[in-house]
Order: sequence, then structure tokens, then C-alpha cells
Amino acid sequence: MKLTILFGGASFEHEISIVSAITLKEKLSDSDLSFVFCDQDHTFYLIEPSKMRATTFSKGEYKKMPKLVLSKGAFTQKSMFSSKEHAGIFLNLIHGADGEDGSIAALLDFYSIKYIGPRIDASVFSYDKRYTKWLCNERGIKSVKYEELSSKEHSNIKIPYPVIIKPARLGSSIGVSIVKEEGELDYALDSAFEYDKSVIVEPFLEGVKEYNLAGFMANSVMHFSIVEEPHKEEFLDFEKKYMDFSRSDRALKADISAELESKLKKTFIKVYKNLFEGSLIRCDFFVVEGEVYLNEINPIPGSMANYLFEDFQASIELLANSLPHAKRAKVNYDYIHSITKAKGK
Amino acid sequence: MKLTILFGGASFEHEISIVSAITLKEKLSDSDLSFVFCDQDHTFYLIEPSKMRATTFSKGEYKKMPKLVLSKGAFTQKSMFSSKEHAGIFLNLIHGADGEDGSIAALLDFYSIKYIGPRIDASVFSYDKRYTKWLCNERGIKSVKYEELSSKEHSNIKIPYPVIIKPARLGSSIGVSIVKEEGELDYALDSAFEYDKSVIVEPFLEGVKEYNLAGFMANSVMHFSIVEEPHKEEFLDFEKKYMDFSRSDRALKADISAELESKLKKTFIKVYKNLFEGSLIRCDFFVVEGEVYLNEINPIPGSMANYLFEDFQASIELLANSLPHAKRAKVNYDYIHSITKAKGK
Repeated sequence: MKLTILFGGASFEHEISIVSAITLKEKLSDSDLSFVFCDQDHTFYLIEPSKMRATTFSKGEYKKMPKLVLSKGAFTQKSMFSSKEHAGIFLNLIHGADGEDGSIAALLDFYSIKYIGPRIDASVFSYDKRYTKWLCNERGIKSVKYEELSSKEHSNIKIPYPVIIKPARLGSSIGVSIVKEEGELDYALDSAFEYDKSVIVEPFLEGVKEYNLAGFMANSVMHFSIVEEPHKEEFLDFEKKYMDFSRSDRALKADISAELESKLKKTFIKVYKNLFEGSLIRCDFFVVEGEVYLNEINPIPGSMANYLFEDFQASIELLANSLPHAKRAKVNYDYIHSITKAKGK
Repeated sequence: MKLTILFGGASFEHEISIVSAITLKEKLSDSDLSFVFCDQDHTFYLIEPSKMRATTFSKGEYKKMPKLVLSKGAFTQKSMFSSKEHAGIFLNLIHGADGEDGSIAALLDFYSIKYIGPRIDASVFSYDKRYTKWLCNERGIKSVKYEELSSKEHSNIKIPYPVIIKPARLGSSIGVSIVKEEGELDYALDSAFEYDKSVIVEPFLEGVKEYNLAGFMANSVMHFSIVEEPHKEEFLDFEKKYMDFSRSDRALKADISAELESKLKKTFIKVYKNLFEGSLIRCDFFVVEGEVYLNEINPIPGSMANYLFEDFQASIELLANSLPHAKRAKVNYDYIHSITKAKGK
């Protein structure tokens, strides 16, 4: 299968996207892979597979590689007298801003480029944690209660300590803090507001069980990964998550009952259906007293959660062959014709 | 003020966007206007203001005009040896798909082009009528109850007749029918499903009062239009709406109490704030027994609802000078540097 990995982006998660892409190069070695890099200035570059290492980007060497522009159905490499198209199916691997906020989805849809990744709507409901809560409420999915702050003024926080403070729109734990008492709150809010003008406050649930499950729909059938109980620390800070994004060893299946596994899958389907088609997502769940709570949707999980799938290569191929395509309106100028006719023009 | 009107789009509302643009040419005659047309193939053209008439498009004459491509901060006209940038502030006047579904917003944001129009999130919550209901529920705004159908199978519709059938994601009454009895239902569903794979059913409220109100935020202050009681027919079909999109005569202020006007404005603010900044929207309300219900959000209203504003030109200038801009992450490769250092590479 021919597949192009699109990575980078003007995002706080730019560097973990590079790590993800390097990891997928290994995990999808049976595919005919190409790599398109989006730099922080939103210029696209075609990257030689042999140059897919971190220093190509950190040292700016990518700037010597061919620039690409978006065109109908392809990224195109233009020179004075010729142009070469890079078409086929793309995998949107830009984590955070650009990739997960709906921008890349809109660009690829607009230029009729086929891709694996969340569509615009799905991006909006997963990128902004407030809208994820709305999705939960409307679809009957349990989620942790929250309060929203739009300024550092916090005298009215009702949730008792410990709380967790998160920027509304970032992933990978950037700007996230656990606050055990009021004295720590100001610093935590400063960190969070550095990244977003909206911040959410949630109770920090101690002793809660966490389970991750990935999946996708292909040919109207849901395909699930194994359920993993992620390595438990208070929470993963950015550097640990960074390493987490390069995971490639198969994870261990969580030791849970068939009943709980079925509950997790049912909740996953409630999240996914009629919204996330075309994408492989990872849902991170909390389980409290046997009840499943959605913590987070990762519509472009780190290294595509390859480590959760029994046959990751086959899963990606299955999904790539079952992508939704937008129906586009045909314009025939019927109304203008009939109106200009009526006006005698 | 220099302003470029972006219109057209691969949308069922392509033709009414042309009508809107021609209307704005007159209504914004004190501005230095340019026109960029997006055809149904998603190619952009620079249109001479003197050529802004319907037949330029219906007869395909626009194809002889200069093509433009998106580039950083501008639409660029490229020839073999030179390129000319068309920069400045744009007004997104593409109704329906492309313009109101978040695509154009994403494109303009991605290329750092300043524009009047709904951002990606705002587009998702106004373009899809289901998500507008979610917004209402979450923000404490009353809306008409509804049911969703994803296939013509309708044995379980609980709302009593008469009902109104709407495709979930189209504006301008396209595919909308009033169904008075079950015998009319199949035909109405056929029409609606022609345009969308999701259809919503609402009770058809007879004898309800309708009021339209437009507004925008500039420099953190809300600016409202007059409230209009729209010309009442059962509902506006496409041809009537089409004519409606070319409205340019000042509307009459509805004869309502100060109390009701204040209620409408309060509801408008609940819809707008922290979501629609950067856009001038029109909200269409129902009033039932003194209670305000949101019927529809038009994030790019026909001819920008110019006829509702006392000084439309000044309103657009005010908004154009107070546009939100997305904060973009800076990438400095700190993590890659520290990790490659630790590895001794």
C-alpha cells in the first residue's frame, strides 16, 4: 500500500509529531511510505524516507528538501517548467494544533485529498475539552464534572481539592497541573493560561482505574485494539509523554472482566459513531465503581497507538480502504438562468 | 477601507453567494472592494469589480480571469516570472458548504489571512442543526425539540403532525418540507436525504412569532442590528430566499416591547460569546408565550443582513478592525535537542 505520512505542524506538539512519524516508519515498513512535513511556518516539504530522523528537523536540514504546495488531489512539487504530483492516501499525524483542530482536515477535504484522520466536526469535539464534555452529555456518556475559567480569577471554584487544571485545547499534558491546595493554584493557572484563554478545572480522582482503548470503523464494522491499563504515575508530564509517543512494543492486555471490556467498547462506539469515521482514535477511560467515564479522546493518538493493535499494518490498510468521502454539490446555475431570463437580460 | 469579498464555493448555495456578493458591492461602495470567486472545482479567481454580475458566472466568463492560489497572508496571482499578492482583510461570503462548514475558515487561518466570518468551532456549531441544539442545551438556550433520522425508516417518529423535515446540514431552506400528515412524509424524506445523510424532524409550530436579529462583537462590545419580524409565509422556499439574499432596502423595526427586545439580545449574546468572535451573524428566533427559542444561526447571513443595520458600512469597518487572531505555537526543538544530547548523538 502507498501511504504518505503528514506530520509536523505549528503546534506545541510539533516535536512529538516528528517522533510519531519516525516510529510509524518502522511500524509500517511493509507499506510504500512517503513523508510530508509541515513546518511551523506552514510550508510543506517532501522528506526522503532515509532522512527521517529527529535532527533533520531540529537542525533545519529539511529546508533543503523539495517544497510542496496543495493542489487538487495532491501535494505538488513545482519547478519553473514542470510539476510533480504526490497523490494517494495521506495519514494525518500532526498532533495538537493544525492536525487535531480541524485545519488539516479542512485543507485535505478542500483539495479532495484522501486521508486517515478526524474530519472537521470530529476535530472540534475532541480538540476542545469543553466540547468533549458536551458530546458526552448529548450522547449519554459519563464524563468527569468540570468548571471553566476564562481568567485567573478563581474565587468561585466549587470543586474541592485536589483538582486538575488543564488548558481547554491542548493535548500531551502540556500546561496541565495537579493542584493539591489553594496555595498551588495561582502557579498552575499561570501555566495553563499560557497555552489557552480557556482553562478547565476537574476533580483529581485518586485511586481511579485507567484504561485505554483504540479503534476505527472500516466497511461499517468497528475494529478494536486490546484494552491497556496504562503505566500508572500521578500523570504523565510532557517529557514522559514524549517518550510515550515513540512506543512501538506491543502493550500488555489489561486484566479485566469480559463485562468491563464490553462496557468500554460500548462507550467507545457511542463516542465514535457518526463522527469519527475515517479516523483511528484512542479513548482514555476512567473506571470508578464499575462505571465507565470518558476522560479524553485522542483523534490522532501518539504513533497511532500502534502498540495496542495485534496487526497494526493490516489495521491501517483496512482503514485506508474504507475512507469516507464528502459529497460535493454540483452547480448548474439554474436559478441565475431562470432569474436573468425573467428579467429579460 | 480595503476589503475583499470571497464568494462562490462548491455548495448548493453557490448561486445565492453570487447574489449576496453583487448586493454587497452596492452596500459597501465606500470601501475599496476586491472580489475573489471560488468556483465549484475550488479554483480561485480574481474578479474585476465591473464584471460583478450574475452572467459572468453562469456563462463561465470568470474562467478567463486571473487564477489565484493561497499563500502566506494572501491570495497570489502567479505567472511564469512574477507573482502579485492580494492581501488585506477578507469577508467570507460563501454560504453553505465550504463557507459555513469550517473549510474556508481553516484555509484562511492556516494561511494567516485575516477575515470576517465564523471560525472553525463556530462553523461546526451553526452549520449542523444537531450541533446547534447541543449548543443550546449546554448554554441554557431554549430550542425546538427534535428527532434525528439517519434513514428513511420513520416508524418511530414521536413528534405529532404537522412536522418540519430538514437536512441536518443545509441552509436556505434547501430540502426542507412541512409535512401535515403521514402520507406526505416519504416524499419529504426523499427530498431531505438527497442533501444529507442525517435529517432532523421538528414540530411545525403554527402561529408562532418570528424575529431576526443580527449582531457582532467589536472591541469586546456587542453591536446589534434592529430586530425584524420577517415577512411571514409558511416558510421561504429556495426561490423566495434567493430573492431575499439580494435585499438591500432597510428593514422595518419590529413593533415589540423593550422587554422582548432585551430578551432577544440576551439570548443572542449566549449564542455568540466565546464562539462567534470575528463574525457578523444573524439569529432567527421563535417567540412562544413570551419565551425566546433559537431557531437557527446564520453565521454568514444572506448579503450579511445589511438591511438590518443603521449604518452597515460602518458596522463592517468596526468589525474588520477588531478581528481575533489565532496564537501560533513557536517550535524551538528543545526536546529533540535534549534527547539527542542525552543519547550522545
